[in-house]
Amino acid sequence: MSSAAEAPGPARVEVLAVVGVGLIGGSFAAALRAAGKVGRVLGVGRHAHTLRQARRLGLIDEAVDLRQAAASADLIMLATPVGAMGRILSELKPHLRAETLLTDVGSTKADVARTACAVLGEGAAQFVPGHPIAGAERTGPEAADAALYRGRNVVLTPLAENSLDARLRLTGLWESCGARVLTMEPEAHDVVLASVSHVPHFLASVYMEQVAAARDSDVRMSLAGTGFRDFTRIAAGSAEMWRDIFLANRSAVLSELAEIRQALAQAEQALEREDGQSLYDWLERAALARRLWGSRSGLS
Amino acid sequence: MSSAAEAPGPARVEVLAVVGVGLIGGSFAAALRAAGKVGRVLGVGRHAHTLRQARRLGLIDEAVDLRQAAASADLIMLATPVGAMGRILSELKPHLRAETLLTDVGSTKADVARTACAVLGEGAAQFVPGHPIAGAERTGPEAADAALYRGRNVVLTPLAENSLDARLRLTGLWESCGARVLTMEPEAHDVVLASVSHVPHFLASVYMEQVAAARDSDVRMSLAGTGFRDFTRIAAGSAEMWRDIFLANRSAVLSELAEIRQALAQAEQALEREDGQSLYDWLERAALARRLWGSRSGLS
Repeated sequence: MSSAAEAPGPARVEVLAVVGVGLIGGSFAAALRAAGKVGRVLGVGRHAHTLRQARRLGLIDEAVDLRQAAASADLIMLATPVGAMGRILSELKPHLRAETLLTDVGSTKADVARTACAVLGEGAAQFVPGHPIAGAERTGPEAADAALYRGRNVVLTPLAENSLDARLRLTGLWESCGARVLTMEPEAHDVVLASVSHVPHFLASVYMEQVAAARDSDVRMSLAGTGFRDFTRIAAGSAEMWRDIFLANRSAVLSELAEIRQALAQAEQALEREDGQSLYDWLERAALARRLWGSRSGLS
Repeated sequence: MSSAAEAPGPARVEVLAVVGVGLIGGSFAAALRAAGKVGRVLGVGRHAHTLRQARRLGLIDEAVDLRQAAASADLIMLATPVGAMGRILSELKPHLRAETLLTDVGSTKADVARTACAVLGEGAAQFVPGHPIAGAERTGPEAADAALYRGRNVVLTPLAENSLDARLRLTGLWESCGARVLTMEPEAHDVVLASVSHVPHFLASVYMEQVAAARDSDVRMSLAGTGFRDFTRIAAGSAEMWRDIFLANRSAVLSELAEIRQALAQAEQALEREDGQSLYDWLERAALARRLWGSRSGLS
């Protein structure tokens, strides 16, 4: 009897299939393996070399196609850009076993819920949507890390069709990875994430492209320091992934951007009229809020 | 004969006075000391406890007032918020010796040049304005670090009145701290810094305050991750310092913000009309530019 089989907590997943073995999917597999909560790991992906790398790194045991994954996995983790979800679920559906649990890690949840219900029909009961709030700057299987989810939040946005058992099973597995699991309505999740994740990415990318497009961008970039580095770091992320996120969460992102635009206009007006007191008050509110968040979040 | 006295490069500064012994001023003193380029370090500041701390940390040898600093220092480094420069120069002026070299580390340079000429008159020949491009998130003497300037850019914006000797002397001292020294016109410096430093701070603070002011800010901040952390890090900076920077560099900052506002509107319109190709192209340009900068800058 192996020690893995004796590990406390949720039952071990005999066969896990990860669709998209990059940072997020690969780290989930690695974390479950480290916790002794998984038997065999199958990897599905678009690029053969990525799968070979994932196998070499020990993240997966075997590369398979969606059909094989559907036929043999007890848990299927979809870790692909959200725009690909519909196509993948359609391909999985005909081969899916009734006892298989599905989940995802997409950064938007209302569209994933809609897609799952539309494509899977009654089978949506097997699909518990989720979103781990964890680093996305690095990409690819070589960035995978069994410790990525330790102390991090994972939001589940269960469908009405999900059984309590399915929800608890997934919660337990994420907790085995060291994560803290929260449950939210998909729409509420999307509004919050528009604010704290999607809008920062939007602004950082707008800003980065404006600097890069400037006639004197070379001298600008040569004098950019650590503030620039931090402010623009997220703009280096995958264009494909972020395009999908913005489109999937379009209305919440646009609505947050409208708020930002208004706040920006007010701050600009204070600067235009050289209103030092208003500028100071605004900067001080921002600084205090950021310092408080830094001390509470454990991230800074 | 001490090894410090034998160190190659610029002549050692017998008495250095640092006005404002925080991260930037304290690191300059520490770096010169580590390079064997300074004898005695005097510290001037508004807060007795900061000066006591600077002394305990070995950054300064003695706390003095501006008058004493002017009377005995060979080099006076002004490391205070740019808004305080006029007052400090006025207080120094009556006691300044003709052979004393002055410099500053302010983030804006056209206003510093104007202030120095207006206050010092002919004495402005002794003042060589400068700006080290180095981290400003941490503050206070305990953040000072002799290695802060190693490999970093320092921009000097000499006045027409400065002697070549004064410029070379200051260049040599910054090089002793490990920095690379560039020379620019003050106005050109301010336009570039508006773009790569002041505007990011403005945007990060507008954004941070908008999130903090939201009705549901608690849940927002509890789901904020590493992207949020990086994007907002600069917003924690000193409100006083940044108010002064924005006011001092008002027209360049407003002009850059107008450009950003236009780029933002275009990106928003692409999202509104669900134009995935435009969104992708824009995000990809931003991502490639950021990755290129990261690999070239040595900062990321």
